[in-house]
Amino acid sequence: MNVTFLERLAALREKKCSVLCVGLDPDPAKMPSHLLANHSLPDAVRIFCSQIIEATSPFVVAYKVNFAFFEALGDSGTQIMRSVLASIPPEVLTIADAKRGDIGNSASFYAKSVFADLRFDSVTASPYMGKDSLLPFLSYPGTCTFALARTSNPGGDDFQLLEVNGEPLYVKVAKSVASWASSTPGSAGLVVGATDIKSMASLRSQLPDVPFLIPGVGSQGGLASEVMAASGTGPVLINSSRSILFASSKVDFAEKASEMAQKTQEEIGK
Amino acid sequence: MNVTFLERLAALREKKCSVLCVGLDPDPAKMPSHLLANHSLPDAVRIFCSQIIEATSPFVVAYKVNFAFFEALGDSGTQIMRSVLASIPPEVLTIADAKRGDIGNSASFYAKSVFADLRFDSVTASPYMGKDSLLPFLSYPGTCTFALARTSNPGGDDFQLLEVNGEPLYVKVAKSVASWASSTPGSAGLVVGATDIKSMASLRSQLPDVPFLIPGVGSQGGLASEVMAASGTGPVLINSSRSILFASSKVDFAEKASEMAQKTQEEIGK
Repeated sequence: MNVTFLERLAALREKKCSVLCVGLDPDPAKMPSHLLANHSLPDAVRIFCSQIIEATSPFVVAYKVNFAFFEALGDSGTQIMRSVLASIPPEVLTIADAKRGDIGNSASFYAKSVFADLRFDSVTASPYMGKDSLLPFLSYPGTCTFALARTSNPGGDDFQLLEVNGEPLYVKVAKSVASWASSTPGSAGLVVGATDIKSMASLRSQLPDVPFLIPGVGSQGGLASEVMAASGTGPVLINSSRSILFASSKVDFAEKASEMAQKTQEEIGK
Repeated sequence: MNVTFLERLAALREKKCSVLCVGLDPDPAKMPSHLLANHSLPDAVRIFCSQIIEATSPFVVAYKVNFAFFEALGDSGTQIMRSVLASIPPEVLTIADAKRGDIGNSASFYAKSVFADLRFDSVTASPYMGKDSLLPFLSYPGTCTFALARTSNPGGDDFQLLEVNGEPLYVKVAKSVASWASSTPGSAGLVVGATDIKSMASLRSQLPDVPFLIPGVGSQGGLASEVMAASGTGPVLINSSRSILFASSKVDFAEKASEMAQKTQEEIGK
């Protein structure tokens, strides 16, 4: 009951020798064609994700569910997401990758949806609207809210690298978010892309204990060994999505995903 | 087919002498108790919103649907939203208030969901992840994507007012977003809160033709007359949510909402 997200992450890291998070981004254009041919799209997504989870869960400590692909399923999206969540082993952590960011009252309802209804362990959130847009998430015991700090996409440079008071905006954002969570340590983390190793090392030196959710390893180009060096000894989750999910688009997709998850886990180390 | 969002907005403004947008934020804690007593929560939300729309539509040019309150309904949320959308007169504009903001591929799926599936006319989006997180929205013909620039919540000050290269971040964001939409004029707008009139006037002087979606009038404290003066002659939508939606929590809620919408429309002028 009183176990924190960080404690669960640390225990899993020790037990599984892994910090690997698999991102569930079920893009129909890349999913195995036999699943799409034999099932409705929502069912194909459900089966695909469930088999990926079964095949990869020995090697992972978390799954990150990308809301975009479930919302695109229409009316049944939430049900399919719920059924995918139910196929994740209970000890494995879950991340609602929803990039939430709205004013306080709306944020409360988003937080209720992901934490109380869907029972995710954590969520991603956008910091642009400031403190009161994040506090409703931070107040759920045992959860962790990963605020976007330095993202791995090309557009991540547009505003995040702008200099404010002698430091880049992403550093200011990261330090502010960490300070807002100071009364409940571990309740806030940061999204820090693997594509900018220097920024990651700089952030880690300033925030040694804040959990980093690190996308951009694999398809997006970040090297696992460099990421582990830059992220130091603090808590990390290294996310890989496409290179594992779509390791094969044939009937052996789950087997190939399992092999790729194991390979990625071994490359990362712990 | 080829009519743009801005052209529709201008025609409605002329016809209805209104720039009023009503925000549909169906918070169960504030909804009429007789609806909650006699219906399941999803049904109560559907009935509440439909009756609000029927009562207020003569005075409004747009409805802004706050996704937080529909997602909080669980599995039936999307269906209820779809049914609420169906009760909006076709000529009235619709805004998906979802504050989207994700990398390009995910953004494409969010855009597909709000524009192709749910058929909203516009969406709100967070700019923090930069250009490639907004482009998939901007590419849908006839739609408008309102990026957060200067928001009306207290935390809006935390990052938006930081000075970058001699101007506040929100100005840099606003100008960047406008430039990204330059090949399809009118496809990008800005969320500019009514609670900071000086910022609004400053933005308007720099971006005379960009549509502003202006929350914060009414319950949040902004004065309609000041807002109209500060937003100049450019395209605007002035949003009011709580003061209209919850004008009464009794059986006369729709009647009172209609009166308040008319009063607000008259205060704003056109």
